This record gives sequence, C-alpha cells and structure tokens, in this order.
Amino acid sequence: MDQDGDPLALSISRAKALHDQDPTCRSLGISLGDVGPGRAVVRLRLTAEMVNGHGIAHGGFLFLLADAAFSFACNTHGPVTVAQGAQVSFLQPAAAGDELTAEAVERTRVGRHGVYDVTVRKADGTVVAEFRGQSTMLSGRPGTAG
Amino acid sequence: MDQDGDPLALSISRAKALHDQDPTCRSLGISLGDVGPGRAVVRLRLTAEMVNGHGIAHGGFLFLLADAAFSFACNTHGPVTVAQGAQVSFLQPAAAGDELTAEAVERTRVGRHGVYDVTVRKADGTVVAEFRGQSTMLSGRPGTAG
Amino acid sequence: MDQDGDPLALSISRAKALHDQDPTCRSLGISLGDVGPGRAVVRLRLTAEMVNGHGIAHGGFLFLLADAAFSFACNTHGPVTVAQGAQVSFLQPAAAGDELTAEAVERTRVGRHGVYDVTVRKADGTVVAEFRGQSTMLSGRPGTAG
Amino acid sequence: MDQDGDPLALSISRAKALHDQDPTCRSLGISLGDVGPGRAVVRLRLTAEMVNGHGIAHGGFLFLLADAAFSFACNTHGPVTVAQGAQVSFLQPAAAGDELTAEAVERTRVGRHGVYDVTVRKADGTVVAEFRGQSTMLSGRPGTAG
Repeated sequence: MDQDGDPLALSISRAKALHDQDPTCRSLGISLGDVGPGRAVVRLRLTAEMVNGHGIAHGGFLFLLADAAFSFACNTHGPVTVAQGAQVSFLQPAAAGDELTAEAVERTRVGRHGVYDVTVRKADGTVVAEFRGQSTMLSGRPGTAG
Repeated sequence: MDQDGDPLALSISRAKALHDQDPTCRSLGISLGDVGPGRAVVRLRLTAEMVNGHGIAHGGFLFLLADAAFSFACNTHGPVTVAQGAQVSFLQPAAAGDELTAEAVERTRVGRHGVYDVTVRKADGTVVAEFRGQSTMLSGRPGTAG
Repeated sequence: MDQDGDPLALSISRAKALHDQDPTCRSLGISLGDVGPGRAVVRLRLTAEMVNGHGIAHGGFLFLLADAAFSFACNTHGPVTVAQGAQVSFLQPAAAGDELTAEAVERTRVGRHGVYDVTVRKADGTVVAEFRGQSTMLSGRPGTAG
Repeated sequence: MDQDGDPLALSISRAKALHDQDPTCRSLGISLGDVGPGRAVVRLRLTAEMVNGHGIAHGGFLFLLADAAFSFACNTHGPVTVAQGAQVSFLQPAAAGDELTAEAVERTRVGRHGVYDVTVRKADGTVVAEFRGQSTMLSGRPGTAG
C-alpha cells in the first residue's frame, strides 16, 4: 500500500507499528484507538491489580495511560520523539473495572519541541485526569515527517 | 508495641500498612525501603514488560514508581492523603533490568496541602527522573498525626 | 441593567470589575479583551523594562500575562477563585515592543477545582508560551455562578 | 582580579553581571543576595502595584521572583542558560509590603539540562510558593564552566 502523501494513513501506520512493539501496552492491555497526525486515543480497563492502598486506581496507571497516548500522538510525525516532561492533575478517582480512555491532542509544535494535552475519561465521560506533556524529537528533521 | 509519641515508628507502621494492602506494588514488585515522617524510599526492578515501543523503560512506570514513593511519604502523617497533581522531568533513559530507587522527601506542608520531591535513580546513582507532587489531606486534622 | 440569566453578560461584567480594581494590570498596561464563561483574553505590549539580562523578554512577565488571563477566566463564574498552581513551557523568545496576547480557555471544572489552558502569542501568531493553571474556588457554591 | 579556579567567585561575578544588566530587576527592585555555583537568592519588597483584583499579591510576581532566582542560579556555570519550563504551587497569599526572598538551588544537571528548586518565603519564614524550573544551555560545553 502506498502511503506517500497521505498524512493520515502515515500517522496511523506509525502509531500502530509503535504500539505493536510496545511490551507495556501488551502486558497491561492498552489498546490503540483513533489516530491522526498529532493525535491518538488509547484505552485501558483498570484491573484489581492497578489499585493502591487506599482502594482506588493508582495515579501511576492514570499517568501511564495518558503518557502512552501522548507518546503515540507525538510519534505520528515520523521522527523518534520522546517525553521530556509532563504534568498531571488528578480530578476524580477511578476504580477497578473502569474502562478508561485517554485522548491526546497536539497543542503546539515548534522545531523539535511539542506540547500535547491528554484527557483521561471514564466510559460515562467523567474526567479522571488532565495531562500535559512536552516532547522532543531525537532524530529526523524538525517540522517534517521524516 | 506502644508507638505513641514515636513519630518514626508511627510513620514506618503507617507506610508498611499502606504498602501491604497495595495491589499495584505487589503485582509490579515495588518494595518499601527506608521510611520516616514525610519521607519514603521504594524500589523496583524494571522488567522486559515495562519497556515502550522505542525499547526503553516506559515513562509511565518511572512516574508510577515516583508516585508510589510520594504516596507513602505523604501518608506517614496519619490522615488519608492523596495526590492532587504532579510534574515529572525525564532526564536519562532506563532499561529492562535496571534496579530503580525512588526517594520521596517532604518539601513543605501548609494546612491540608503538601509538596513532595522525588528523585528516581539507577543503582549507580544516575538520576533518571525528577518528580514533584502536590498532596491534599482528605481526613483528619491538618498539621497533626491523625 | 438586568444581567440575570445572561451568562455571557455576567462573565463580562465580573471580569471587567476584577480588571478595574487590579493594580498589576493598571501599572503594567495589561488590557482585557474578549471574555466569556470560563474564558478571557488579555493583552500586553512588552516594554524595555520587561527584559532580562540576556536581552529577551523576562519569562516572569510571560507567565504573569498568562496568569492574568487565567485568573479572569476562572473568576467569570462568580465565586472568588484563585490559582493553586500552574505550569508553563517557554517555546519562543519575545522582545521589547512585542504585542502579546494571552488567551485562557477552561478545560475542565470538577466541584471547586478547574483546569485552564492559556496560550501566549505574538501579533503574528507565533506561540511564545503555553501555560496551564489549576484553580480552586474559595467561596460560593461549586459549579454555580455564585 | 584573577578568579580562575575559584568556582564561588566565578559564580558570583556571573550572577552579578547578569543582574546588573537586567532591566526587570532594576525596575521592580529585585536585589541579588547570596550566590554560589548552581544557587542564588533574590529579594523583592511587594508594592501596592503588585496586587491583583482580589487585593493579594499577583501570582505572576511571585512566579517572576522565583524565575529570577532560577535564572541567576542556572547561569552561574557560565554557558548562556534559559528556562524551558517551570511549575509553581501557590501555598499562602502575600500582601503589599511583604519582603519576599526566593532561594534557588540546583537539584540535578545532566548534559545541557538542569532542574532547579526555588522556595519563595516571607520575612517570617512563611512559604508563599514552591517553584521548580527546567533549564537548557544554549551555548558552551555542557557540564563545564564555559
């Protein structure tokens, strides 16, 4: 299949390739949903093993899910891109059994640096966490798809 | 054993109790190390399942480890305390097999709100990530141990 | 003038009232632009006194402008609302003479807590900084306009 | 005066030179206090013009003061160093007339990237804000003094 010149198809194939070779997503059951240039959706069903000592979802897994969406979104452009930093606000608790969706959207990209916003929601739309990540490209030409 | 009046023994018993009932720590193999009032150390050996599609440790697990240390540290005071938000800077990559230590130290506490710093290091001392968390007490009297 | 039942008019009058009694905005020349429920735009012309020792706009003034937009936006709902924390990414330098615009948009509001995104741009649209703020209501009923 | 080989004297002279040519510090009255390699203290007396519409110190000035301390601290190593991002937690309000001190300490430095912690206090020691900044060197050799 020739994907040249089709940014949407390219972004999907890049995110899928990265997801296919991601042991974390495989072992935790994080699936990849809609993808486009600079954006990606991932999903996770919280298990009883993702809970902390207070009996609610461990904030680390909420962050991890958002971070996964962020990583797929910022790698849709082609160059290997990694997270430099991120911030998260925990707004509502989640529980074992909850089906969570994390939706990452590119906010700004300047040269090698990008800013991405990720919202983590329950199936009923409740916002569990708001995440913002800062990315940096390690390879390729900034601002291009390769 | 009477722990009244011994803040160190109380902080250790509180962190241990929380760790003992934490499914995340049990399933991932996060152990609890030194604990004291407002501080806690946790350890994790990164497995091959904690790697992302780029072949390096998933940032989500680095955050999760720091978040676990933060949570134990801020609950040493007694009242149920949860994370409101956190920020992380990823400084060096880690790999499967690395033994990571996250050390959380209380920076400031004002009423129900606290600020904690967590450094994640490899066994050779290399700093992998710097984390800062904001906590809020849900129960108990602020500024006291229960 | 009866503003009951008109959220737009109410949000404008609240932001204007707050701006009118704000010595910082008056002394620095920060003007108030478009306002609506949960959103506000402010403007500032950088002067030669807002530059740092490297000869570029002081990051503190970029943050201050974003923080002002954030504050007006989160107070459009009525209850006195203050910033608990904020994060900023500095993306491009600005210079004395630049006309900056900061546009704040509410991202999520849960009970007394809100998350707001602010983008700081030059007149040509260049993004200078991306800001995110966490707000908390001090008075009034959460989720209502007073 | 020969400062070769004296990191303390070099860090002081670098911070002073940067402070001397900083219009923001001059116009707001921000003075430079103790300086050393990777650390700096600055001071500011809040004026009636640094207050917001709620009658308390504008968070933007609290951030600006911390950011100034951060900037002096990260430039003590020699290479031109700028802020990439920062986070702030506002813990207690400040008022016109308060004498504020911001103390910046280097937490970690890896290659061109550094993490600095800044605490903003009133004269009585009350912590007003906790700030963390991420720096990046624009020139010179990373890890060296020039």
